[in-house]
Amino acid sequence: MPGSTLGQLFKVTTYGESHGEAIGCIIDGCPPNLKIDLDYIQNELDRRKPGKTRHTSQRKESDTVKILSGVFEGVTTGTPIGLIIYNEDARTKDYSDIKDLYRPGHADITYEKKYGIRDYRGGGRASARETAMRVAAGAIAKLYLQQKLNLKITGYLQQLGPIVAEKKEFNKVNTNPFFFPDESKIQDLENYMDNLRKEGNSIGARINVIAENVPVGLGEPVFDKIDSEIAKAMMSINAVKGVEIGAGFECVTQKGTEHRDEISSKGYSRNNSGGTLGGITSGQDVEVSVAIKPTSSIRLPGKTIDKDGNDSTIVTKGRHDPCVGIRAVPIVEAMLALVLIDHVLRNKAQNQ
Amino acid sequence: MPGSTLGQLFKVTTYGESHGEAIGCIIDGCPPNLKIDLDYIQNELDRRKPGKTRHTSQRKESDTVKILSGVFEGVTTGTPIGLIIYNEDARTKDYSDIKDLYRPGHADITYEKKYGIRDYRGGGRASARETAMRVAAGAIAKLYLQQKLNLKITGYLQQLGPIVAEKKEFNKVNTNPFFFPDESKIQDLENYMDNLRKEGNSIGARINVIAENVPVGLGEPVFDKIDSEIAKAMMSINAVKGVEIGAGFECVTQKGTEHRDEISSKGYSRNNSGGTLGGITSGQDVEVSVAIKPTSSIRLPGKTIDKDGNDSTIVTKGRHDPCVGIRAVPIVEAMLALVLIDHVLRNKAQNQ
Amino acid sequence: MPGSTLGQLFKVTTYGESHGEAIGCIIDGCPPNLKIDLDYIQNELDRRKPGKTRHTSQRKESDTVKILSGVFEGVTTGTPIGLIIYNEDARTKDYSDIKDLYRPGHADITYEKKYGIRDYRGGGRASARETAMRVAAGAIAKLYLQQKLNLKITGYLQQLGPIVAEKKEFNKVNTNPFFFPDESKIQDLENYMDNLRKEGNSIGARINVIAENVPVGLGEPVFDKIDSEIAKAMMSINAVKGVEIGAGFECVTQKGTEHRDEISSKGYSRNNSGGTLGGITSGQDVEVSVAIKPTSSIRLPGKTIDKDGNDSTIVTKGRHDPCVGIRAVPIVEAMLALVLIDHVLRNKAQNQ
Amino acid sequence: MPGSTLGQLFKVTTYGESHGEAIGCIIDGCPPNLKIDLDYIQNELDRRKPGKTRHTSQRKESDTVKILSGVFEGVTTGTPIGLIIYNEDARTKDYSDIKDLYRPGHADITYEKKYGIRDYRGGGRASARETAMRVAAGAIAKLYLQQKLNLKITGYLQQLGPIVAEKKEFNKVNTNPFFFPDESKIQDLENYMDNLRKEGNSIGARINVIAENVPVGLGEPVFDKIDSEIAKAMMSINAVKGVEIGAGFECVTQKGTEHRDEISSKGYSRNNSGGTLGGITSGQDVEVSVAIKPTSSIRLPGKTIDKDGNDSTIVTKGRHDPCVGIRAVPIVEAMLALVLIDHVLRNKAQNQ
Repeated sequence: MPGSTLGQLFKVTTYGESHGEAIGCIIDGCPPNLKIDLDYIQNELDRRKPGKTRHTSQRKESDTVKILSGVFEGVTTGTPIGLIIYNEDARTKDYSDIKDLYRPGHADITYEKKYGIRDYRGGGRASARETAMRVAAGAIAKLYLQQKLNLKITGYLQQLGPIVAEKKEFNKVNTNPFFFPDESKIQDLENYMDNLRKEGNSIGARINVIAENVPVGLGEPVFDKIDSEIAKAMMSINAVKGVEIGAGFECVTQKGTEHRDEISSKGYSRNNSGGTLGGITSGQDVEVSVAIKPTSSIRLPGKTIDKDGNDSTIVTKGRHDPCVGIRAVPIVEAMLALVLIDHVLRNKAQNQ
Repeated sequence: MPGSTLGQLFKVTTYGESHGEAIGCIIDGCPPNLKIDLDYIQNELDRRKPGKTRHTSQRKESDTVKILSGVFEGVTTGTPIGLIIYNEDARTKDYSDIKDLYRPGHADITYEKKYGIRDYRGGGRASARETAMRVAAGAIAKLYLQQKLNLKITGYLQQLGPIVAEKKEFNKVNTNPFFFPDESKIQDLENYMDNLRKEGNSIGARINVIAENVPVGLGEPVFDKIDSEIAKAMMSINAVKGVEIGAGFECVTQKGTEHRDEISSKGYSRNNSGGTLGGITSGQDVEVSVAIKPTSSIRLPGKTIDKDGNDSTIVTKGRHDPCVGIRAVPIVEAMLALVLIDHVLRNKAQNQ
Repeated sequence: MPGSTLGQLFKVTTYGESHGEAIGCIIDGCPPNLKIDLDYIQNELDRRKPGKTRHTSQRKESDTVKILSGVFEGVTTGTPIGLIIYNEDARTKDYSDIKDLYRPGHADITYEKKYGIRDYRGGGRASARETAMRVAAGAIAKLYLQQKLNLKITGYLQQLGPIVAEKKEFNKVNTNPFFFPDESKIQDLENYMDNLRKEGNSIGARINVIAENVPVGLGEPVFDKIDSEIAKAMMSINAVKGVEIGAGFECVTQKGTEHRDEISSKGYSRNNSGGTLGGITSGQDVEVSVAIKPTSSIRLPGKTIDKDGNDSTIVTKGRHDPCVGIRAVPIVEAMLALVLIDHVLRNKAQNQ
Repeated sequence: MPGSTLGQLFKVTTYGESHGEAIGCIIDGCPPNLKIDLDYIQNELDRRKPGKTRHTSQRKESDTVKILSGVFEGVTTGTPIGLIIYNEDARTKDYSDIKDLYRPGHADITYEKKYGIRDYRGGGRASARETAMRVAAGAIAKLYLQQKLNLKITGYLQQLGPIVAEKKEFNKVNTNPFFFPDESKIQDLENYMDNLRKEGNSIGARINVIAENVPVGLGEPVFDKIDSEIAKAMMSINAVKGVEIGAGFECVTQKGTEHRDEISSKGYSRNNSGGTLGGITSGQDVEVSVAIKPTSSIRLPGKTIDKDGNDSTIVTKGRHDPCVGIRAVPIVEAMLALVLIDHVLRNKAQNQ
């Protein structure tokens, strides 16, 4: 059973490879009469797109999104929304050297073993390029959440390798190329990334995302708890290896008295729960943290095998991000928006 | 849209509250002609059941599972398998004191706000009792995975509060009440738990689980990657607040050269990936780690509000686990088994 | 992928064989705070149950339904509702003679070829007994539709073999053993059925069902149109071979001017559409008609083969309905109720 | 919950309005390594497309389909297949006269009431134009069924108004503009249609479709029986009002001895079952018949109301089919192909 659809009621299905003709998606189930601000959607895509600074992939894509259906005179009609982005700067030849080798840490080997076929033109479906459609669909979800619920989603880079954000200046997040909330460390990041690029290596990152003004009641026990759905959505992003809700792994050493968020007539005492109790949103902020692995596509040679199983060595040229964590910030936001809108609709169906 | 079903092809749907008449489930899609060993299933349930040692809840349940359909002359018939366990030791009166209060860290408040109704008899659907059915269904999944693929799943307690397993003596895991793989620290655990119980407090834990002999090719990009599905399944367990695959949050500070698992004709150099590349199993062991929060039901008084929003204080009597992490080991195993069997079938459908 | 679940938001999953221990179902997604009238549910089951008159199967089942979860103090809680009926009068020995033969017109042969196993105790999962759970779940759906929308569903036997209802006296439908709306023909039916039983044969039937007070807007184009969903639900009932909406097959010879229902400020001119336009309910009555084949289990000998493919002859003893169409009336009503409630919730999710 | 997806494992999701920029679909779950013959797909689309003879709509669309993803070097890769057809001859102005009126027999009124918005440019999502994507996706399904199973699907016009096919010359079906299997009546059809067009009216039709070489074992009891799934798929086609499997409504007057298909070592005696027993294919031909209503868009004036509820009269200009049944033949074939391929994969998952 295929897996290119996310969501049950706000249902996003995507297609497209990094080096094919286009990538696209269908959003089925978007409530009608939602005002669609195309500039807003394009701006979200621009936040994710490569080639904007020297710290991300140098692939040049305008990532211009086109709406093919489901919107009439500026509002959604309730019918499926077709979105498309044509690929412009796909250099298939970058990959001709390695068409018989598997890049370590990459999906080349598992895709080939699963499907029995090698589409050697870049990452194909496993490329980060696929995430552009998550951002486009997420932008429409965000429009709904903002317009109808005043719900706000903020993602930021909490840590890049050894550099940790100590301040949370959210108004700075979109003013630097790293989505970093601690302005005092931007220069450190610049230096770190410049060295890394020279070295030809890559680095991991931690991204946090917060949703404010989340209605109480979202999440469907016992398997589709809001935390389960968020965990799935986040872990489905390329390179994510860990997900935490609220206190996350800190709770391993917490006692019950430390962990449980006491309640008073003024609200909750703190937010170890990350905004969810029993898998249902409590009305507190939803707080999520994800771990992003370092890009496996690096210039430094690595051991691998060829299609016949012989030992070999590989150097990945192409144009890659030394830290995919940076561009992942808008993606993480989009995924949270997609889960939340789906559960707003799911909750509405049964309970209102 | 409700959330009591897990899986697409090996589909488990559960019902039942902790203080209702029975809990049960339907497994739809189990392949036919699978030999059903009822003793094995019961034994898995016994691993999870409360009241076996002083370190877990003292509720006495035989947890005797009955098969109502789908099995004929000892083998599955391909039709839905109905399973049921009657509740025996439900003491509803334990809860009469707190029927107008919300237990902090509990689902009382969110269930009531979501559904507009308070079933005050214990945890209801949000009780850990619900997980018995996960273990029962997981046992059937394990039988299939063992018989057909020789696939083996081992869970263990990696950490309980400050006490970390340093050795991995897997043959010891089922010989102590903690599912702990490091025999040298069992006495420490006993002491720690005895003190905790006296104190009336609770503690968090980290559980690891490994699947060996996993076939290559499981997982359905891009949203139903094997890691996404595992993350969802794990996060759907009561009290889980974090999930890691392979290196997990360690990869935040790893460089690409450190993280990527190089490949040679002898296999992979290590397993930072946790057995998955591009969301598809690579044939390496699948390695997962989860964080379990400390039980919120503790004897120590906590601040809360009543149904009218007035400030109050609560003491949870009932019979609760000071560390739910202990009994969660068989649950974590079951969830991994359920995800893997579902993806074995999903992969078979499209690709074989 | 298994098929024991109906509905997306009001989700019914069933299990159980005719000669197993019990049959049951889980309803997941029932809105909370619905008043549950157990007598009403039992009464619906009694309308369907065998052994009430000489014209239906003589199997004696009390068909007493028990609610195991999801209802507290007389109202639904929003959590899954577990229902169970124990089998009481399963005479497996009736089937021992034919355990190596396939009954023509029956599912014996296809089940065995599909699943590779023969559960020879009666019809198993393919028995009409399975439909009891549809009626039980449908009764809960009806309670919701009645209480919240004043929606009313009426099924009746329109034709049994050569005998056609000419009058539509709906108040008579539940006062005769045939659910027949034309009192003047009851004696004809009695005589026909008595002769048929003596002959050892069976007969087909046509059942009609009407839903009144259906809200405008139910149905989800383009694949889950309300008519598609009704067609699926009806055709999933054992023995149904045809489904019509509104004018049905009459429209083959209708011209556009005859068929299209004109609209005026007083409403629609007629109801050829059967209450649906473009797959969405129009507010007119939903009108459905189904064809039920004659029971294949008859006393008259028929040609067949045994498990080794040798020619043979079979006589079906057991206790069977000479016209399954009679008892199918409450089932057809239940299926319509299940489709409508599911689409009430689906429409609410996106559009209200 | 939206309804633009058909199938569970071979999953087709469509988008696009008749007068929007494009229509398209995503096929997710197509087995990899299937040889894609683009000419075959285009040819299937050409069979359906309007404007080829004077007997169908005069809208001129090349209906050129483009594959955007999921196919590499002529074979499927296992990843989602994106298909697109741009709209070329959309004359929105044809509809400006009637933007405030509801066409009787049309979805204008129900779409507006459901979604709260009127997309007055033609039929929008409810237009028969939407079915082009069914044919495109169905063509890929047919390629699989032909290549892997030698399964053959043949649809034909069995009846158009009063004119019934008496001969079944299947080799003639694609050699006349009516998909009619009885060559002796082609002239009658031509005359009938010419008169109808002059009259400005429309007419209903009956289409039959047969699948040969269907494997035993397809269909998932009890709700997703092969007959249920076919019924749903057929009834989801615009204008379909009735569906029969095998004997269909004839079985209302059949006795058990007449209806049941006896079995011998040489096979089944006849095919009243239409190739399905207990909802599972028996290996006999799958035989389906559907009723198509006459187009509601006719030149003859009809009574209706305007948006404010005032009585009015409408004349539909546009360019419409006097008998949509004709062009529906390839659509009916496509729908059967889509159901069968989905169930081939579903059966494979659990049972092989």
